[in-house]
Amino acid sequence: MDESRLTRQINFLLELDKLKHVLRQSILLDASRRENDVEHSWHLAMMVMVLGEYAPAGIDLPRVMQMALVHDIVEIDAGDTFIYGEQGDKAERERRAADRIFTLLPPDQTAEIRALWEEFEAGTTLKARFAKALDRVEPLLLNIYTQGKMWREKGVIAEQVRSKNYATLAAGAPALADYMRRLVELAVEKGYLPE
Amino acid sequence: MDESRLTRQINFLLELDKLKHVLRQSILLDASRRENDVEHSWHLAMMVMVLGEYAPAGIDLPRVMQMALVHDIVEIDAGDTFIYGEQGDKAERERRAADRIFTLLPPDQTAEIRALWEEFEAGTTLKARFAKALDRVEPLLLNIYTQGKMWREKGVIAEQVRSKNYATLAAGAPALADYMRRLVELAVEKGYLPE
Repeated sequence: MDESRLTRQINFLLELDKLKHVLRQSILLDASRRENDVEHSWHLAMMVMVLGEYAPAGIDLPRVMQMALVHDIVEIDAGDTFIYGEQGDKAERERRAADRIFTLLPPDQTAEIRALWEEFEAGTTLKARFAKALDRVEPLLLNIYTQGKMWREKGVIAEQVRSKNYATLAAGAPALADYMRRLVELAVEKGYLPE
Repeated sequence: MDESRLTRQINFLLELDKLKHVLRQSILLDASRRENDVEHSWHLAMMVMVLGEYAPAGIDLPRVMQMALVHDIVEIDAGDTFIYGEQGDKAERERRAADRIFTLLPPDQTAEIRALWEEFEAGTTLKARFAKALDRVEPLLLNIYTQGKMWREKGVIAEQVRSKNYATLAAGAPALADYMRRLVELAVEKGYLPE
């Protein structure tokens, strides 16, 4: 037993507690409060489990689940960046966050978790594209099933939602894209999301 | 594409949002508020990822991760039962909750998720025992690193913590049990947890 290794691992796990404080721009379905990054990440991992059959055949779903769990950890330092707002120096902030947070782990695990996060960010593999598509499904569902409350409060319009989501959905989860598009267009019809 | 199947899956995923409201008896490390079941489940899944090397050799870690993610879903209906309090009809309440919540899914997935939950609950496989050990590690760390605030508020004493945790840790994650025992005994010495 290498105690210094275990201590590093525990310190990393303690650091992760901070992600429970990073609030997103989505609200829970009962509209009581904003969702945090940890809640979003768990919900995403559950989507990997429940909607895995819509992924491209043969992809490594356990790895997609790992990506779902870790993809927002950098926001402990970098904060949540609203998808429909200014992105600013998001990439640079998140890279610096990855440098600090992932290196709390022993070096072999730093490399592993960084590879997971970078694969997700790059979005070039089928696994990452599927994870990124589900990462759009989760807030879309929360927004649609709260009658677009946050969309309307933030002044988001239909064209932004279409341009930020439809291509990502079609690229990563074509089997889900049509269903999700119809939910969004129905939300537009109902006035949850202004044209 | 079987739309009624996807609609059932989406309805299940929407139902899961309620787990974000189920509060536990642990507090976050900054002591600002209680942790909820979803935050606990994500943290547990991250422990499976980071501490997987301490599991018995050859066990199916992706399945342990799935157990971590789903093990508390029944608490949407059954509520959180404090480990150091009266258990009441916990088993019966949770069984009824499983009957209602898991059957929102298509039947094949109802069977899969129920099997995951039942494997965790039974605690007879090495995978379930490892998951159960980590399920003790997470609140122990939160309590120890908040100077036992909730333990003291709830009147929990050292003997309860030892009897509810040490055997489970030793059975499921012997490689971690000694380290965790020492953290607890140090907490006792420091007065975070009264004898």
